[in-house]
Amino acid sequence: MARRTGRRPGNPATREAILEAARAVFGQRGYDGSTIRAIASAADVDPALVHHYFGSKEQLFLAAMQAPADPRKLLPMVLTGDRAGLGERLVRTFLSVWDSPAGTAGIALLRSAVSNEWTARLLREFLTVHVLRRIFDHLDVDPVEVPLRGSLVASQLIGLAVMRHVVRLEPIASADPDALVTPIAPTIQRYLTGPLSELPG
Amino acid sequence: MARRTGRRPGNPATREAILEAARAVFGQRGYDGSTIRAIASAADVDPALVHHYFGSKEQLFLAAMQAPADPRKLLPMVLTGDRAGLGERLVRTFLSVWDSPAGTAGIALLRSAVSNEWTARLLREFLTVHVLRRIFDHLDVDPVEVPLRGSLVASQLIGLAVMRHVVRLEPIASADPDALVTPIAPTIQRYLTGPLSELPG
Repeated sequence: MARRTGRRPGNPATREAILEAARAVFGQRGYDGSTIRAIASAADVDPALVHHYFGSKEQLFLAAMQAPADPRKLLPMVLTGDRAGLGERLVRTFLSVWDSPAGTAGIALLRSAVSNEWTARLLREFLTVHVLRRIFDHLDVDPVEVPLRGSLVASQLIGLAVMRHVVRLEPIASADPDALVTPIAPTIQRYLTGPLSELPG
Repeated sequence: MARRTGRRPGNPATREAILEAARAVFGQRGYDGSTIRAIASAADVDPALVHHYFGSKEQLFLAAMQAPADPRKLLPMVLTGDRAGLGERLVRTFLSVWDSPAGTAGIALLRSAVSNEWTARLLREFLTVHVLRRIFDHLDVDPVEVPLRGSLVASQLIGLAVMRHVVRLEPIASADPDALVTPIAPTIQRYLTGPLSELPG
């Protein structure tokens, strides 16, 4: 990677300054509207330094929002396989992340999003751009319905995380993942690909 | 109501002292295990004073947890009508409470529950004893399944409130209630009374 001398040298505070600038710019302009250049400018460093520290815009975003997990690594597990099993694989993967050490970061992120509008904005971008868009790119559902379907999926999964890890309502709090995948997977499957207005059997 | 002279006179701080004692006792022993007598004792006042200020144990509980709405007033609207429309009426009533001024109190309660274990405990008691138990008392589902069904209902509804009012993910954040009742009612209906492990059409 070509590395120029930034306006500000690589002192220990630079990394944090870039992350702060990234949170502000991503929060204000959204992920798609933000550039490494604009973030570097806001942090008063050279863009090459941002690339040097964080690699891509996506990696910078995930670092800035302290994402508990990297959707690029997890979503292939969800998207590989038959379409009818998508809901099941998504719920199972979601539960396994939240039940792992990453879950602690997830709870911290939820806490922050609930009390801080900037974190809420970053969480919206994370869900929309980095998780839901990638899932629906693999599905042939009516594009008009995609935003609603995506936010319905998010509502059930976030509610599951809140009940299992924050409010800790039993039996969801201590249930074996399988005992939750079974009833929740059909909900997610319907939100993803099923008829939205039809009463299931 | 017979009113005796409490050990502590009715000074302006007494009401708050009773509420604090109630939060501690309800949080520690749960709603069913708590008595007005124990709360009065913890607040160092006469039980009659607690009744005088708050009426019933349930009213005291709702005041202590700053419940955004009174399930005794709302649930009849949900429970009156045909069984097949239960999910729809529950989602519609839930949305109307959260879209009303009471929603602000609901958001405050969620914020507190996310960062404070005591509020989370009170919220669990509220959901379990005051909302879900009352709903399932009207339904003839297998009693063994009731706790799971109840916590599934809570997970979808809380997730809906979080997405609509806290994270504010679109289109859930601004959608007309009807546009949300239509896709979510079948989920709630299945969690309440439907087959938990079956894929809907």
